Amino acid sequence: MKVVVIGIGLIGGSLAKDIRVKYPDARILGIDKDASHQQEAKELGIIEGKASYEDLVNAEVVILSIPVDAMLSELPRVLNHIGEETLVIDAGSTKAEICQQVEDHPNRRNFLSCHPIAGTEFSGPSAAHEGLFEGKTNIICEVEKTAFKLQERGLELFRKLGMRIRYMNPESHDKHIAYVSHLSHISSFMLGKTVIEKEKNERDIFDMAGSGFESTVRLAKSSPAMWTPIFEQNRDNVIETLDEYIQNLQLFKQKLQDEDYPGIYKEMDNTNRIKSILEGIPLNKS
Amino acid sequence: MKVVVIGIGLIGGSLAKDIRVKYPDARILGIDKDASHQQEAKELGIIEGKASYEDLVNAEVVILSIPVDAMLSELPRVLNHIGEETLVIDAGSTKAEICQQVEDHPNRRNFLSCHPIAGTEFSGPSAAHEGLFEGKTNIICEVEKTAFKLQERGLELFRKLGMRIRYMNPESHDKHIAYVSHLSHISSFMLGKTVIEKEKNERDIFDMAGSGFESTVRLAKSSPAMWTPIFEQNRDNVIETLDEYIQNLQLFKQKLQDEDYPGIYKEMDNTNRIKSILEGIPLNKS
Repeated sequence: MKVVVIGIGLIGGSLAKDIRVKYPDARILGIDKDASHQQEAKELGIIEGKASYEDLVNAEVVILSIPVDAMLSELPRVLNHIGEETLVIDAGSTKAEICQQVEDHPNRRNFLSCHPIAGTEFSGPSAAHEGLFEGKTNIICEVEKTAFKLQERGLELFRKLGMRIRYMNPESHDKHIAYVSHLSHISSFMLGKTVIEKEKNERDIFDMAGSGFESTVRLAKSSPAMWTPIFEQNRDNVIETLDEYIQNLQLFKQKLQDEDYPGIYKEMDNTNRIKSILEGIPLNKS
Repeated sequence: MKVVVIGIGLIGGSLAKDIRVKYPDARILGIDKDASHQQEAKELGIIEGKASYEDLVNAEVVILSIPVDAMLSELPRVLNHIGEETLVIDAGSTKAEICQQVEDHPNRRNFLSCHPIAGTEFSGPSAAHEGLFEGKTNIICEVEKTAFKLQERGLELFRKLGMRIRYMNPESHDKHIAYVSHLSHISSFMLGKTVIEKEKNERDIFDMAGSGFESTVRLAKSSPAMWTPIFEQNRDNVIETLDEYIQNLQLFKQKLQDEDYPGIYKEMDNTNRIKSILEGIPLNKS
């Protein structure tokens, strides 16, 4: 199987590593606009070498794992270069604008729109690791628009990687993912900002930081280059989640100001059921 | 060494377990107002048996690990019952009100005011585990008010548990801890609330939740009985942190509304240094 990975970072690199294990005869080439990433990925054995756009015509699988703004121009370009039997998979964290962008592309049937919900706060080829996708969810959008044979190839690949598949339309994906992913990132970034701003002498305060703080602020290590275009493409949904989040924080603050401690207890008690919710589902653990 | 642990939950139970390892001849008794906790702690081998207040007079170490509201009445009561050579240690997450409460107690010199920054989102005797305090920070307040000999006994205990000691006054403790701990809990609880509220069909949305969401929402599993009185005692500081946090979220939202994406990038880029800050300190890992 000939595979070309475009964007050899955490997601693209991890996919390449798993494909190497699951398809021992796969030939995996890479394209990355960052020459040092390209070089690093080769040195780490993630890719065998550099691909060009001329290689796409013979590829069986092309994986696009690049920031979602770059995706808007790169995906049509890739679809222009592929062969009739090439499957193109994306891994974007937003889906509506990307799907719209190639809606009328003559090779739309070669594209399977995916969001593998996996990752860490780290990025680049060195962050790639085997088994990242095992047990994780892969959201597939507009599956009906992909050629049946190519759907099958994609599903077989994800099955081998150990992923659970969920089908959604792009608009539902973007709306829901704003709650369970995009809002978490903003809450974490702003928490980090609030604490950093407060303390001139960082050493003092961070000496007091425990695992709880580390956990809530972990996502503030994420890449701005990846996340800015996600927030841009999912702007309306993200603003809605932010409105509700801010409102809930203000309500909590009001209860504190009113010294309504039974009310504060109740707020936390009601939310405690997040415990059983998270336990009850096969969570995408890191 | 005779030890009495009052409140045999996550913190008290973990301290008891470590003491058993580090002081093999220690006799550890417990007091818990919850009879089932008392029983469970005995069955788990955390304590040898039940103590009464009459046992305190002969105890060398008394550990108070109970919610901070109960602490206000329990600490003076304990100080009333102890012997001249008894060291009393608390583990409260707030310090100012507790220290104030016993400021003029005739046995103030027997008390060492502590906040071991360790824990998980779980509670009760079954959550207790050995080694919880290894490498963690213990904040000690008003050390000068504790008898020198008893300070030594306390420090020796914490040294054996592998803790790093930091000295602070209670007001600074409460101010700083509001940022690195209390605010994290509220941001996490309100994030959980916002997401739960949104989705009638929980299964759908939580199926999409990844490790990032789990990480930011982890603290929303915490005990309301423990946290309500913490927020009550540290109300002014917590309101201040909430104000700043909400303001930063509103600013972020405004930038989204204005489509100021370079500004959003910058916000995240500036906060990314949380990475090196957290790496640069011996963090209290769970």
